[in-house]
Amino acid sequence: MIKYRLVYFNAKRRAELIRFIFAYAGQEYEDFRIEESQWPIYKHRTLFGKLPVLEISDDIESIQLAQSLSIARYLAEKFNLVGVNEIEKARADMISEQLSDILEIFYTIKNEKNTELRAEKERFFYKETLPFYASMFERLFEIQKTLHVAGNTLTYADLAFVVFWDHFGEKKKKFFELCVVSKVMYEHVNNLPAIVEWKNMRPMTIF
Amino acid sequence: MIKYRLVYFNAKRRAELIRFIFAYAGQEYEDFRIEESQWPIYKHRTLFGKLPVLEISDDIESIQLAQSLSIARYLAEKFNLVGVNEIEKARADMISEQLSDILEIFYTIKNEKNTELRAEKERFFYKETLPFYASMFERLFEIQKTLHVAGNTLTYADLAFVVFWDHFGEKKKKFFELCVVSKVMYEHVNNLPAIVEWKNMRPMTIF
Repeated sequence: MIKYRLVYFNAKRRAELIRFIFAYAGQEYEDFRIEESQWPIYKHRTLFGKLPVLEISDDIESIQLAQSLSIARYLAEKFNLVGVNEIEKARADMISEQLSDILEIFYTIKNEKNTELRAEKERFFYKETLPFYASMFERLFEIQKTLHVAGNTLTYADLAFVVFWDHFGEKKKKFFELCVVSKVMYEHVNNLPAIVEWKNMRPMTIF
Repeated sequence: MIKYRLVYFNAKRRAELIRFIFAYAGQEYEDFRIEESQWPIYKHRTLFGKLPVLEISDDIESIQLAQSLSIARYLAEKFNLVGVNEIEKARADMISEQLSDILEIFYTIKNEKNTELRAEKERFFYKETLPFYASMFERLFEIQKTLHVAGNTLTYADLAFVVFWDHFGEKKKKFFELCVVSKVMYEHVNNLPAIVEWKNMRPMTIF
């Protein structure tokens, strides 16, 4: 029997998409959250000095995977969440990479030590960056005319889409007023029983 | 018949892995390089306001893919360069993502406007960042005991590994003195006839 252990901090950030995939697939796993104080020791046990990592063990061996999106794609492939043809697959890949790039910008801003500078960069993010990408995505979805972000089937990119928008709390409502296809896609996944259940049971964290 | 058109600037950077895949697969494509001055117009024709994009056309329709690694994986899948089992596939994915993350750090440094600050950051990169990752990769390859970065078969991650090290010119020699497995892997791919041929015919650019 294969055992999965996801190692990350007590935060959603770069691990939450992976947790969504496990939740949606109904797959048992250990959601191992290390303390910040344990990190300097744990760091040297990771492949590239970064979290999350996924430890996959069977009776014979244990392997470790790194890179959150690579882990997500590995699991998505296992649980049939990568799309049903090569174009859906490529779109799911591209959309999750693009969402990840935007989140990287967002996290970098959140890590800015200078309070004034951080506030200024946040204003720019919500006034320029996020509206730009939100409308790019909406345009793509309008052209595709499909039920899900990557095509006709639910993929890990749909889960990534919900994880993405959840970073922006109440602020997403304003975006969804104009991005109506995005809103429908977001709500469809957000109301799935497995996702509702996970959101109710997961530890409370800001990001 | 499917036609491929890769759109990027006259640079290697985020497009070169894709060009390596085309070269290795022996697949014809249009290597379309736009001028910086054309970019403000072209930008609005891209999915997410970024290059590279890959345009894939047949007699019926034309689609556009964005995100360099997503394009690379799409083509790698087509040309059987993603690995022969799920673990090789996951490792190829993870390694190419990790190499891309390091290059992102490198490009950010190169874009630093302040000359002194840039020099300081470059020193840190070559003294700390690159040695750290170079030894992490070497350790991984030593444990894997395989011929290629992701396993026993050549994947797009092997091509990404060559593209990666080529960013550092003569400086890579010092790394390869200690990272001997990495050196063997690099040289194997770098000496492949298709790669030699592409390197000889491609336009001269710094990055």
